[in-house]
Amino acid sequence: MISKNQLAFLRSLQQKKIRQQQGLFLVEGAKSVQEVLASDFGIERLICTDQFYKENARLTDHQRIVPEIVTPDDLTRAGTLETNDAAIAVARMRPNDPLRADPGEWALVLDDIRDPGNLGTILRVADWYGIANIVCSPTTADVYNPKVISASKGSFTRVRWFYTDLARFFSDIGAFTPSHNHSLICGAFLDGENVHRAAFGARPDLARPAYLVMGNESTGIGPAVAQYVTHKLTIPRFGGAESLNVGVATAVLLDNLRRSQSR
Amino acid sequence: MISKNQLAFLRSLQQKKIRQQQGLFLVEGAKSVQEVLASDFGIERLICTDQFYKENARLTDHQRIVPEIVTPDDLTRAGTLETNDAAIAVARMRPNDPLRADPGEWALVLDDIRDPGNLGTILRVADWYGIANIVCSPTTADVYNPKVISASKGSFTRVRWFYTDLARFFSDIGAFTPSHNHSLICGAFLDGENVHRAAFGARPDLARPAYLVMGNESTGIGPAVAQYVTHKLTIPRFGGAESLNVGVATAVLLDNLRRSQSR
Repeated sequence: MISKNQLAFLRSLQQKKIRQQQGLFLVEGAKSVQEVLASDFGIERLICTDQFYKENARLTDHQRIVPEIVTPDDLTRAGTLETNDAAIAVARMRPNDPLRADPGEWALVLDDIRDPGNLGTILRVADWYGIANIVCSPTTADVYNPKVISASKGSFTRVRWFYTDLARFFSDIGAFTPSHNHSLICGAFLDGENVHRAAFGARPDLARPAYLVMGNESTGIGPAVAQYVTHKLTIPRFGGAESLNVGVATAVLLDNLRRSQSR
Repeated sequence: MISKNQLAFLRSLQQKKIRQQQGLFLVEGAKSVQEVLASDFGIERLICTDQFYKENARLTDHQRIVPEIVTPDDLTRAGTLETNDAAIAVARMRPNDPLRADPGEWALVLDDIRDPGNLGTILRVADWYGIANIVCSPTTADVYNPKVISASKGSFTRVRWFYTDLARFFSDIGAFTPSHNHSLICGAFLDGENVHRAAFGARPDLARPAYLVMGNESTGIGPAVAQYVTHKLTIPRFGGAESLNVGVATAVLLDNLRRSQSR
C-alpha cells in the first residue's frame, strides 16, 4: 500500500520544477526499471510488486536497495503508464556536465525538439546506432520527463546528454561559419544534399568529432544554429508525404552515416 | 454549437464497431481535414470553425459540402485531439478491395502491428517512400482509428490498404515456400542479412511486385507468415538498444531498398 504522502511525492516528480529541485526522476515499468537498476544511475527508492522483486533480486542486491512492495494497482495509480504491474524507481539525475565526443565519433545535436515521445525515440535510435553523446538546446524537452524515459526503452541508461546554448556550444568547439569550420557539422534540411549520394567514409575532418543536428518538429533547425552547419543533408523523397517524423528522420540519417563509414 | 446528439454521434465513431456499422470515420485537425477534402474520399459531414471555412472555401466547394460552423471548444469536446481549433470531417470508408502492386513496385505487408500510433507512422513513411499499397493482417490496428488517421499526417489519403489473412494473400499471389517463390518477399528479422550489404537493383524477381513484411512490436513476424519470406533482412546495430520502433525500422528498410534500386 502506497501512503498518501508517497503518492503525492511520486506524482510531483512528473513536474520538471520539482524534479530539478529534488534532483530525482521517475523510471517506470519492468524493462526500464531493470535497465536503471543495472546502470550507474543512483537509485533513491524502488517501489515494486512482490513478483518483480523476486524475479530481479540480483539487480536490487547490486544497488543495495530495500524495495517497498506494493500492488499493480498502487503502481498504476502512482505513475504515468496506462498500466504498470512491475515497478517504479526513483533515480538520481546526473549533473549537466559538458560532454565532447572523441575524434571520429558522431554526436547528435538537438535544436528545440519539443515532443517527449520524439525525444525518447531519438535516445533509442542514438543508442542503436552507437551514438553516446547528445547535445540539447535548452528548449528541447526534458530528458527526465517520464514520457521521454518510457519512450527510450532503457536507452537513457546508455546515452549521455548535455543541455546548453547550441550557438555557444559550437563556438566553444571552434566552429565559426560553414567555410571556416574545422569540424564536420551535418544538419537535416529539406534542401540539402541527397544523403544517398553523400560519402563520409574518408573525410579528413572525421579526425575530429562530427555532429548531426536535428531541428524542431515544425520549423526545423533555427538560423542561430544553422549558420554552423557545414553540410546540409536531405533524405530523398519518393512519394507524397510532406515530411518525416523527427525520430524517423534521425534514424534514416544515422543509418546512412553508419553505412557510408563502414564501406 | 454542437447538439448533444451530434456530440454522441461523433464520439461513437471512436469505436471500431460503430465505424464499421456506419461505414464512416473521423478526420481531425486542419492539415488532415484539408488533405481529406482534397482527396477522393467521400465527405459525409464537415464541422469547422468560421476561420477554417473561410480559409478553405476552395476545398469545401470542391466537395460541394455545407459545413456546420462551431467553436474550437466544440471541436475539442467532440474529438480525440488535445486541442482542435480548425475542423472535424466525417468521411466515408473505402471498400476493403483486394490490391495488387505493379511489377517492380514494392508493397508493405503488416503482420499484427497493434499500436495505432505506429500504424499511422508507417502510413506516413510508406507515403514518403512512394509505397502505395499496404496489406494488413486482420489483427493489425484499424486504419480508420482516429489515432492512426492523426499520426499519418494526411498520408492516409495517398496510400491504399487491404485487410486479409496474410497466409492466404501470399498463397493467392503464387508464393509457396522460400525456395519455390516467384516473388521477392523481404521480411524484417533480427537474424537476417545486413541490409547495408543487400542489393536489390538488378534482381530478376523485381519484374514482379515485391513485398516488405514488418511484424508485431514485441514478437515480430509470426511463423505462418515467416514461411513465405524469401529474404530475411536486418538493420545493423552499432550500440546497445535491443530493438528499434517498428515505424522507425520500416523507414530505415525502405530507405535502404530505395537507395539500392536507384543506384
